[in-house]
Amino acid sequence: MAEALTPRSQDYAKWYNEVILRAELADYTPVKGCMVIRPYGYALWENIQAGLDRRFKATGHQNAYFPLFIPMSFLQKEAEHVQGFAPELAVVTHGGGKKLEEPLVVRPTSETVIGHLYAQWINSYRDLPLLINQWANVVRWEMRTRLFLRTTEFLWQEGHTAHATEQEAQEETLRMLEVYSDFATRDAAIPVIQGRKSEREKFAGAQTSYTIEAMMGDTKALQAATSHNLGQNFAKAFNIQYLDRQNELQYCWTTSWGLSTRMIGAIIMVHGDDRGLRLPPVLAPVQAIIVPIWKRPEERAQVLAAVEGLKALLGDRVRWQVDDREEYTAGWKFNEWELRGVPVRIEIGPKDVAREQVVLARRDRPGREGKSCVPQAQLVPSLKELLEDIQKNLYRQALEFREQHTQETDDYQEFKEVVAGGFTRAYWCGSPDCEQAIQAETKATNRCIPLEQPEQPAGHCIYCGQPAREQAIFARAY
Amino acid sequence: MAEALTPRSQDYAKWYNEVILRAELADYTPVKGCMVIRPYGYALWENIQAGLDRRFKATGHQNAYFPLFIPMSFLQKEAEHVQGFAPELAVVTHGGGKKLEEPLVVRPTSETVIGHLYAQWINSYRDLPLLINQWANVVRWEMRTRLFLRTTEFLWQEGHTAHATEQEAQEETLRMLEVYSDFATRDAAIPVIQGRKSEREKFAGAQTSYTIEAMMGDTKALQAATSHNLGQNFAKAFNIQYLDRQNELQYCWTTSWGLSTRMIGAIIMVHGDDRGLRLPPVLAPVQAIIVPIWKRPEERAQVLAAVEGLKALLGDRVRWQVDDREEYTAGWKFNEWELRGVPVRIEIGPKDVAREQVVLARRDRPGREGKSCVPQAQLVPSLKELLEDIQKNLYRQALEFREQHTQETDDYQEFKEVVAGGFTRAYWCGSPDCEQAIQAETKATNRCIPLEQPEQPAGHCIYCGQPAREQAIFARAY
Repeated sequence: MAEALTPRSQDYAKWYNEVILRAELADYTPVKGCMVIRPYGYALWENIQAGLDRRFKATGHQNAYFPLFIPMSFLQKEAEHVQGFAPELAVVTHGGGKKLEEPLVVRPTSETVIGHLYAQWINSYRDLPLLINQWANVVRWEMRTRLFLRTTEFLWQEGHTAHATEQEAQEETLRMLEVYSDFATRDAAIPVIQGRKSEREKFAGAQTSYTIEAMMGDTKALQAATSHNLGQNFAKAFNIQYLDRQNELQYCWTTSWGLSTRMIGAIIMVHGDDRGLRLPPVLAPVQAIIVPIWKRPEERAQVLAAVEGLKALLGDRVRWQVDDREEYTAGWKFNEWELRGVPVRIEIGPKDVAREQVVLARRDRPGREGKSCVPQAQLVPSLKELLEDIQKNLYRQALEFREQHTQETDDYQEFKEVVAGGFTRAYWCGSPDCEQAIQAETKATNRCIPLEQPEQPAGHCIYCGQPAREQAIFARAY
Repeated sequence: MAEALTPRSQDYAKWYNEVILRAELADYTPVKGCMVIRPYGYALWENIQAGLDRRFKATGHQNAYFPLFIPMSFLQKEAEHVQGFAPELAVVTHGGGKKLEEPLVVRPTSETVIGHLYAQWINSYRDLPLLINQWANVVRWEMRTRLFLRTTEFLWQEGHTAHATEQEAQEETLRMLEVYSDFATRDAAIPVIQGRKSEREKFAGAQTSYTIEAMMGDTKALQAATSHNLGQNFAKAFNIQYLDRQNELQYCWTTSWGLSTRMIGAIIMVHGDDRGLRLPPVLAPVQAIIVPIWKRPEERAQVLAAVEGLKALLGDRVRWQVDDREEYTAGWKFNEWELRGVPVRIEIGPKDVAREQVVLARRDRPGREGKSCVPQAQLVPSLKELLEDIQKNLYRQALEFREQHTQETDDYQEFKEVVAGGFTRAYWCGSPDCEQAIQAETKATNRCIPLEQPEQPAGHCIYCGQPAREQAIFARAY
């Protein structure tokens, strides 16, 4: 039997890495800070992609593919943007054996090169809105990396849109925030808080950044996706203009929004337990693992024949696999598939064959309590119902955990005591100085100013005591 | 009305570029040699991906994602490999504001880094075969670039597999060649010749390379996909070993195979005509374009109401769009959608509304001859049948064209006369010197040694006259 995982309570970071490596989601590579996403992890990413892509297309977006390389001079056209990204750039200086005249940056994000192209594609109001997304790899040179959470190269999607009016751009920004929120909630079973980023935390070059923030299993926060209203900043830097109905030249209003393979890190940390992953059924690469069980050789043929029957019943109605390896015991397999977070295990042994039943064991409720016997004829509807219930239960558990670890306070002494243990909601005056001081004293950052605020806001900044109109969420974060 | 395309007969290269830019498949970017794939072109690529990915998964492959960057030293571990790729490399020398200790190459292909990882993942015969594919971008620094055909960055898939025996690796190599051939034939409606590459033309580091070769509309050849048996070359360079059933350490046998966005260039060149693209229905982003037609304002509501009925009928049974823009005439729209290669146009005007019919116009048969009236109630089955017929017809036309431009000869004088006009099949002794001399004298290269050979081969090399056992296909190529 394989060695047990490090318990989460003992060393959360170690548990996190062990789960990833042993469940074969990803691995390290010889290139510093770059990971390889292994088939099981990539299948999870494909399901994330499918869930998002469907939503992007339903809201009128099309996919395209923009170049990996960006001339260094492009980044410099938007002052805040280059300042934000300059320290993280990977730079190509040689190509085809020669030194390049102008160094090329490996895209850290694509606002600049896309802005340049939009300026050429957009002529009149008839070309608007322009709603494009790309699935791509990006590179940000990170000093300290963590699998999925912060890697030099990562996969993401980046949406880039151009609009005729400020209002349309703002609507788009919030629409995509809602799309991310819906995906996180329904598909990833992760409750999120929609909010606005402070000036200090916003995207370099944005007018306003929005985020969905989730609480991980160690009570830290993780920014799970962002949506930016770029105002006319990039339109002016790249001359994205259109002729309006009165035939007058106007600057566009643009947005961008992204979600990355970080989401996989969030899924691991929100749902995982000391046995390993617990994958939400909607996204799980394998929703049900069939484990045939026998002891005596004469039982073998009988059980495997029954498994053939189950396979025929299941067809492509759920994503299933059979583990009929003979070199491992049933107990070893149970541990293995629990580690890999498969939502339901279907056990079938000689007794079950005789009774024309199977045993369903749910990953989210370990032990006897999570087991039920189901007639084989009822397998598909029972399994579907169970998967839905597990999906809801994972969400409910995550939400309860977050609520248990969220506090509201108006007292800075209390704030300092509780902020290490989860999300702390407090009034904040809006000053970056207060944010910075709070971070210096508590390691907690301003995660967001939630879109949902008290109906009659009235308070004082948790740090400086000045009158404050909005609450913010503070937490230590990934 | 927009200016007509340059006729293919007048300037094929110019026609090709015009079609791509005007159909909005792709565009140039400010980065030399890098293109942007616009939404219409990317939707075509998504359909290509879906057709291939389904086939890869059906043959037991899983997707994964490997790092973009490869340490320079890795490429040097396989001598032929580095020699082949060194002149085309893009090199990252700086990251995060510092000079890197070892320069990183932007992957031109991933055998080396994947070989390194496979060596860690593979321990015993139980881990084999390892069957992984990745969808990714790659970079090869090209001096002369052409949209889709040869760009510095391009998108592709690269399959990488490891096997216990030489025979299994060879079977895999040919299985994937067959998968490509099936995809080209059925989905892209492109007839291909399966063959082996000569030593001179094979992949740098392969033991044997196989190819599918297609004839373009100007009679030139294009390598549409390749599949390589890598023997133990990379296994030895990267120490990919496994313990066999006797507990002895053995080197693996590996393969790799790839198909890129070049395929889009092939689809354009094989099927396109002087009106523009002709997309095979299986891959076309839009299979049917509905063009409502009216003259008098009172007809408008009537026709648009009927269009709503058509939309409900079609649902998601075919991929359709409606062009109800009012700023363009019907004739302008006909040209536009013909340029974009949409297989079927559905016209509906007041008379059709009265008769409860529509007019179907097929892209592959222009003018009156390609039009038919169909009762609205029969729209879906008629349209599906028509799409299938167009798919077959495009394939048939391409095959006929290739057959008309393929000759077999055993006379070098004749060879020199005919080889500029298509594929020439001739016996060849196997010597690289003869290949090279033929290329120098005729500009034609050895495209492949077809898998299908005469039953009782007996001939003499077209160049040197020595006895030769196999025929090869010679042609000018992209």
